[in-house]
Amino acid sequence: MIRVNENYLKLKASYLFSDIARRVADFQKENPDRKIIRMGIGDVTEPLSPAVIRAFHEGVDEMASASTFHGYGPEQGYGFLRELIAREDFQSRGADIAPDEIFISDGAKCDTGNIQELFAGDIRVAVPDPVYPVYVDTNVMAGRTGNNAGGRYESLVYLEGTRANGFIPDLPKEPVDLIYLCYPNNPTGATITREQLGKWVDYARKHKALILYDAAYESFIRDPSLPRTIYEIEGAREVAIEFRSLSKTAGFTGTRLAFVAVPKTCVAYDSAGNGHSLHALWNRRQSTKTNGVSYPVQKAAAAVYSPEGRAQTAALVDHYLSNAAIIRREMTSLGYDCVGGENSPYVWIDGKMGSWEFFDMLLREAAVVCTPGAGFGACGEGFIRISAFNSLENVQEAMERLRSVLK
Amino acid sequence: MIRVNENYLKLKASYLFSDIARRVADFQKENPDRKIIRMGIGDVTEPLSPAVIRAFHEGVDEMASASTFHGYGPEQGYGFLRELIAREDFQSRGADIAPDEIFISDGAKCDTGNIQELFAGDIRVAVPDPVYPVYVDTNVMAGRTGNNAGGRYESLVYLEGTRANGFIPDLPKEPVDLIYLCYPNNPTGATITREQLGKWVDYARKHKALILYDAAYESFIRDPSLPRTIYEIEGAREVAIEFRSLSKTAGFTGTRLAFVAVPKTCVAYDSAGNGHSLHALWNRRQSTKTNGVSYPVQKAAAAVYSPEGRAQTAALVDHYLSNAAIIRREMTSLGYDCVGGENSPYVWIDGKMGSWEFFDMLLREAAVVCTPGAGFGACGEGFIRISAFNSLENVQEAMERLRSVLK
Repeated sequence: MIRVNENYLKLKASYLFSDIARRVADFQKENPDRKIIRMGIGDVTEPLSPAVIRAFHEGVDEMASASTFHGYGPEQGYGFLRELIAREDFQSRGADIAPDEIFISDGAKCDTGNIQELFAGDIRVAVPDPVYPVYVDTNVMAGRTGNNAGGRYESLVYLEGTRANGFIPDLPKEPVDLIYLCYPNNPTGATITREQLGKWVDYARKHKALILYDAAYESFIRDPSLPRTIYEIEGAREVAIEFRSLSKTAGFTGTRLAFVAVPKTCVAYDSAGNGHSLHALWNRRQSTKTNGVSYPVQKAAAAVYSPEGRAQTAALVDHYLSNAAIIRREMTSLGYDCVGGENSPYVWIDGKMGSWEFFDMLLREAAVVCTPGAGFGACGEGFIRISAFNSLENVQEAMERLRSVLK
Repeated sequence: MIRVNENYLKLKASYLFSDIARRVADFQKENPDRKIIRMGIGDVTEPLSPAVIRAFHEGVDEMASASTFHGYGPEQGYGFLRELIAREDFQSRGADIAPDEIFISDGAKCDTGNIQELFAGDIRVAVPDPVYPVYVDTNVMAGRTGNNAGGRYESLVYLEGTRANGFIPDLPKEPVDLIYLCYPNNPTGATITREQLGKWVDYARKHKALILYDAAYESFIRDPSLPRTIYEIEGAREVAIEFRSLSKTAGFTGTRLAFVAVPKTCVAYDSAGNGHSLHALWNRRQSTKTNGVSYPVQKAAAAVYSPEGRAQTAALVDHYLSNAAIIRREMTSLGYDCVGGENSPYVWIDGKMGSWEFFDMLLREAAVVCTPGAGFGACGEGFIRISAFNSLENVQEAMERLRSVLK
């Protein structure tokens, strides 16, 4: 008899964005004439840059002729792209990452979801709260947690982000083996300093723990004192894997390209205490379970690193950052405490009431959709997230509506 | 201390195609002037069809303008593509598959590798021998096997393909829960009749087992009496998941698009004997761990189903089938027994000596690369696979060389 992975049955039935979608659909049905402005899901709205579009077309054209056609590519990604990424995203910042330590994929969601396969089933996993749900759910599916009791899964260690610590969790008091960190943070928009990140690297080195560092939003960092990659921190090469994506950097949410840096110096231990190269294990995983990323997409991604592409994609990010600044300024002037919105596309707002209550009020009274912080974990209760991924026009109109409702 | 998934350590260190690549590289180094003809890995050589290229460009153009831009798409794939596939690949053949039972992905390797996550860790898994290594390795990684002893993993049930049964394995004598089948077969090129496939469906229904049916090569079937999908078989909707790919159908190995049919009537059972919908579980897995497939790629894939695209991609397949017929005819005339090469791009040849011995001889004496059957499992020993994915010119030259070496 075929039997189910019963860990899947522990997953909470509802999913944050589905709940939101349902409430929004219900509202629209009851109010067919209201123009809803969606500031919820963090999806880009601006088109791909001209340099990227041109390279994408060139990649497609190469597929049209036998002499330039590309069949199966390397599962790890093409060398031309891995070299650009290693040089431009890491070496140029003094971070020692080699091209063959970069693995191209079609999404950071896949990568952050799949990486846990490399680890033992009974390690102790620490996740932030509030948190991007993928870190949690993929560990639930793999059986590393107990049941969900009161909104939290048994056996997970929750690293609490609060107003008091500025949503930079303290080091765990109990020992943990695997640590998920994300900066600039989704959902809070908080950023981490070199000194704060150094404490986590030191912790990991001391406890032989591993940090999974999600830097999907690094391109929003404008403050030169903030680290753009964890490998700017001494010792991180031994204890950290970093996740990156072009989704928000270059508007690739519908185009699909991400990558992981797995330094050859990172290890995980067997029960006899021997270290095994995580680079070799991830390479084995990727070459067994994937066939790499579409060639024209990799070609388009390479154009992001051209001088023209860099300027154009930086302008895209500037656009969203400017929206974020407007949102932050407006909400602050209305008397709300905000985190993020600087060096981040997300503004995390203390709503001074329940998250879903605030969500429902904004939807009902302003026809503006935000994301209730409680959907990201217990510590998100009382907060909402407003995303800057929108047109300037929509952001301005949404802020006008909020002003009239909240003032 | 971060600990490794020790199941990965059970994996055999070498991987078939890496071994081949190394031997070929060594040969080329020693013989820099010999032109090697590669008939090993099953990768397409012909470019994408004009209709596909046109749609691919259109998809890219849509990404260039805010009004037609696509951000995150549905994790399950766009409705326009799921509808085409359900209608053209299934309903048109009398197979009852609905659009929302189709899940788009970027590769059948991912899908056949990921699907095992839905099942309990201690189910009994049956795999063919010879076999596409992904079915085996992904179950090893998940801990469903013991160690590899003498080329076979403990706890796996091997369904033996032999000359006697024409590489259509007999039903297992011991009970199994999950059964991998692949027809037209990789690597043997064998095809299965409706009657033979019906026996497997009956077995699965009787034992509450599940069949994972890999039909990546279905477009090579020209014999109208052969089933093109397992859902042509009565009762299959309750016990089978089918995997498809545009890789070989439309030359998408470097473009990346595949799909799975998961009927809503398929279940897996919990320890209390309750059935759980595999459609719901796969949907949860895909929406948690992926963000769908690149929009321009889905747009290109849809063009495969246009009347023009159908004709052009059928012509591609015809080209490879004509190569396969040449290979089969030549090898038969040289006195070798062949399976496949009809309704399949692979010709499976009894080499009348050890697989690697035959491989080395063809490489050394003819500078032709084949795939040693032993690399696909113990039952492949003594056989080689020759792939028809090549230009006509290369196939003709390879056959001339083989004739002079083998006659």
